[in-house]
Amino acid sequence: METLLLNPEDVVANARLSEVIGAVEDAFAAYERGDAQMPAKSYIDLPQYNGDFRSMPAYLDAGDWDAAGIKWVNVHPDNAASYDLPTVLGTIIYSDPTNAFPLAVMDGTSVTRLRTGAAAAVATDHLAVEGARSLGIVGAGVQSYTQLEAISEVRPIERVVVSDLDESKVAAFRDRFGDDFDVRAGSIEEAAACDVLSTVTPVESPIVKREWVGERTHVNAMGADAAGKHELEDAVLLDATLVIDDHSQTTHSGEINVPYSQGVLTDDDIDAEVGEIVAGKREGRTPETGISVFDSTGLAIQDVATAHVVYEHAEEAGAGYPFDLVDTRLR
Amino acid sequence: METLLLNPEDVVANARLSEVIGAVEDAFAAYERGDAQMPAKSYIDLPQYNGDFRSMPAYLDAGDWDAAGIKWVNVHPDNAASYDLPTVLGTIIYSDPTNAFPLAVMDGTSVTRLRTGAAAAVATDHLAVEGARSLGIVGAGVQSYTQLEAISEVRPIERVVVSDLDESKVAAFRDRFGDDFDVRAGSIEEAAACDVLSTVTPVESPIVKREWVGERTHVNAMGADAAGKHELEDAVLLDATLVIDDHSQTTHSGEINVPYSQGVLTDDDIDAEVGEIVAGKREGRTPETGISVFDSTGLAIQDVATAHVVYEHAEEAGAGYPFDLVDTRLR
Repeated sequence: METLLLNPEDVVANARLSEVIGAVEDAFAAYERGDAQMPAKSYIDLPQYNGDFRSMPAYLDAGDWDAAGIKWVNVHPDNAASYDLPTVLGTIIYSDPTNAFPLAVMDGTSVTRLRTGAAAAVATDHLAVEGARSLGIVGAGVQSYTQLEAISEVRPIERVVVSDLDESKVAAFRDRFGDDFDVRAGSIEEAAACDVLSTVTPVESPIVKREWVGERTHVNAMGADAAGKHELEDAVLLDATLVIDDHSQTTHSGEINVPYSQGVLTDDDIDAEVGEIVAGKREGRTPETGISVFDSTGLAIQDVATAHVVYEHAEEAGAGYPFDLVDTRLR
Repeated sequence: METLLLNPEDVVANARLSEVIGAVEDAFAAYERGDAQMPAKSYIDLPQYNGDFRSMPAYLDAGDWDAAGIKWVNVHPDNAASYDLPTVLGTIIYSDPTNAFPLAVMDGTSVTRLRTGAAAAVATDHLAVEGARSLGIVGAGVQSYTQLEAISEVRPIERVVVSDLDESKVAAFRDRFGDDFDVRAGSIEEAAACDVLSTVTPVESPIVKREWVGERTHVNAMGADAAGKHELEDAVLLDATLVIDDHSQTTHSGEINVPYSQGVLTDDDIDAEVGEIVAGKREGRTPETGISVFDSTGLAIQDVATAHVVYEHAEEAGAGYPFDLVDTRLR
């Protein structure tokens, strides 16, 4: 038996975004039902290299399909300067849960971008106003592309305001999407006034002010992924319908971690986990909802769900490189 | 940059056993010094498939070299009957700790066999009588081969007694090693009288009696890897100089787990961790030592140390298949 190797191009070519969004939505629901297993991320800290490794194993049973796998990923902020490599490099082993055969080994970095965009789309689908036509994006880095790609699958986005201190990133974003959307550079204030706002920055001091956010704007707070990071003023979180992906991850390293650790924001301020909304146990946006915020830290089940979609299509299309990786002899 | 893919043949061809033994010994010493990181194994239990997945990440700094990686492995006992696949399938991602680039993805099953043999060899080197010429092996399955291969690297083994209820396994073992060693089938009693004994079975009721074990025999108890399993009568453990690989793993799932959970064997009966002996903090065999036992559960640092040796030689030899697996673009 052979394991299918999928490089970044294979992953992107075989990830049908609408299906990835559906699979991530299924994963959130399975987690809420108790049909997923996701051991806590385990960390290896390497201060001598200013970096760390994280292992993210998961299994989920969506009913029609189930999937297992692990993402092995890191954060090494000096990589670009020292090695001409990205800060984050991910590798995913995607396994058959019935017998544990490694069906595929694939680039985890492109999977991460896809599943992060998909998570924002799932939240946006349940929390943004129906006819949302404008999308603000703060931070035009690698994660911003899949924000627009995924969110435009669930809302009729026409106009995009992109805000970044780095003009070359804004220009690259416009080059990529200018033909399909009315994309323009703007301030954070202008981005925050859109129907949907996605923040995708690593800042540790909030950059989105309460008074800038539209009355019924839905905010996807995607950037915070470590203790100390937050992008939104506390007042935004306190005034909003606040939805998180996972309590332990968000209170530890998500958008809410700073005000939560300070006691400014408590469990009483958290309205729902996204899985509860997807599963129909809590409402998404109602006519009474003002601002809504989705605090996304990224769950291992999202990676496994995305890998599932990628593998199924790659296998069907004959994509990737089949390799006799593991010893399957019976002795 | 490319990731090197190494199949089972590549792993075996590039694992120089003497170097693997040295690397595993270095790993035990690094762990003892506090120069290793090994988060607890995390499990995903899938009772619906009678199986589980385990993730085993590790980093170690041996001084001259360091290494990081993760083994993703499973136990699915129905695999042979249902899928014509082995119970255990392992995959290892071996990464550069300085920048986290995945240097190699390799078969983890052959690495497991090598590192398990190497651990027995390290313990045997410190605990068996100097001139040990006879080796008893109980259980002639896949793990028995690397027991002989590795132990014969550290002791002048000439005679091998192999004991297994399955005669075809004994015959296969003799076919493999009959030219190089005096190999004969024998009872467990005969195997236990040898200078060195390795037990490599999954039994849950002890099969090695106290009165059978030679006065100065060193026993490598390799089989137990889950709660409830044990191969040696309690009296063997209580009378022996008892050395373990890791306190939490051995008390939970190693040879000692049953008597330990019953209070028959306590921490006072454990003489050393193998790392303490390797690091020179405790003595190995002395003229006063009678029976010695090494309780090996298998540590993630052993896998990473073995992967290090395999990768270095494979890279040098131009072995394996280089593949552009992960996205290294800076954007």
